[in-house]
Amino acid sequence: MGYSRDELIEAVSAQMPAKRWQHTQGVMESAVKLAEQYGADPEKADLAAILHDVAKYWPIEKLKDVLEEHQSSSELLLYNKQLWHAEVGAIVANHDYGITDLEVLDAIRYHTSGRIGMTLLDKVVCLADYIEPGRDFPGVNNIRKLANDSLEEGLLAGLDSTISLLVSRREIIFPLTVLARNDLIKQLEANS
Amino acid sequence: MGYSRDELIEAVSAQMPAKRWQHTQGVMESAVKLAEQYGADPEKADLAAILHDVAKYWPIEKLKDVLEEHQSSSELLLYNKQLWHAEVGAIVANHDYGITDLEVLDAIRYHTSGRIGMTLLDKVVCLADYIEPGRDFPGVNNIRKLANDSLEEGLLAGLDSTISLLVSRREIIFPLTVLARNDLIKQLEANS
Repeated sequence: MGYSRDELIEAVSAQMPAKRWQHTQGVMESAVKLAEQYGADPEKADLAAILHDVAKYWPIEKLKDVLEEHQSSSELLLYNKQLWHAEVGAIVANHDYGITDLEVLDAIRYHTSGRIGMTLLDKVVCLADYIEPGRDFPGVNNIRKLANDSLEEGLLAGLDSTISLLVSRREIIFPLTVLARNDLIKQLEANS
Repeated sequence: MGYSRDELIEAVSAQMPAKRWQHTQGVMESAVKLAEQYGADPEKADLAAILHDVAKYWPIEKLKDVLEEHQSSSELLLYNKQLWHAEVGAIVANHDYGITDLEVLDAIRYHTSGRIGMTLLDKVVCLADYIEPGRDFPGVNNIRKLANDSLEEGLLAGLDSTISLLVSRREIIFPLTVLARNDLIKQLEANS
């Protein structure tokens, strides 16, 4: 308990390949920038970003064990394994690294799927994960451009790119991601 | 009660513009053909097709009244009005036209959204609605081609085209449609 930021970085970076740690550093940078621009807490954004992929390279069986042990989202086990690391990341941040701020834990938990009623911090971390400088996928520059002017527009474009990718790959779409982007559309319409 | 097929056609066609009735005739033709090819009951397919759009041109307020009166799917009221006519169609088929076969009623109810665990008749009517001869939208010929070889492949392509269209139009996606296409992918994987 009581890890310093440096200790946390050391512990987390040791659990992934160098390339993934480079991605995490990009997410830290983008998350802090977005937090400053859109009025979220930059320290919380930094903390959530450091930890968001802590379990990304854990073996599937270990992820499954943690999910089952914590009975935290049994529905998740029915869906794409790509989603498991986010939920496990929140559990690990809490249990192994003593993070107790629910806002930070939720931003880790929902960084891949999104959710209905995303907090400012959820949005910042989820969007940073799409646009960090190292990302390179079709449409990423459009998402970056939208993110300059609106957190919600950027995030909607990010989630929609995920949905389109899953459709084109005939992969399972996690319903929460669809609910998250529907909710963003409603928020944008309400504010327009 | 006890409408003959001709009486039903007369009553239903009177509730929509000629062009929509032409579409309904196309769905009848395609649904019967698909039913014969894939082993569903052609008479039930014909009946569901005749009635599937009975409420399509009802005023929104009337659709809303029927949904509220029957408390049948309050969640639906939160979603795109394009979906309401399917649920109302099933209620009208039951109450006004004396259709009591749940398989037919369900095929009407889920013809736009799809659902988890679609029956053979659900699939036939939903797919016929995509590929009837009068339909002309980007990708329809690909769906027709897939439908020649597999009911599920055709339907998956149809539902995915709807999801992609809604993404591109930044419109709300009904979660049940996503669950339906996820379920079709699982069925196709299980049978491959």
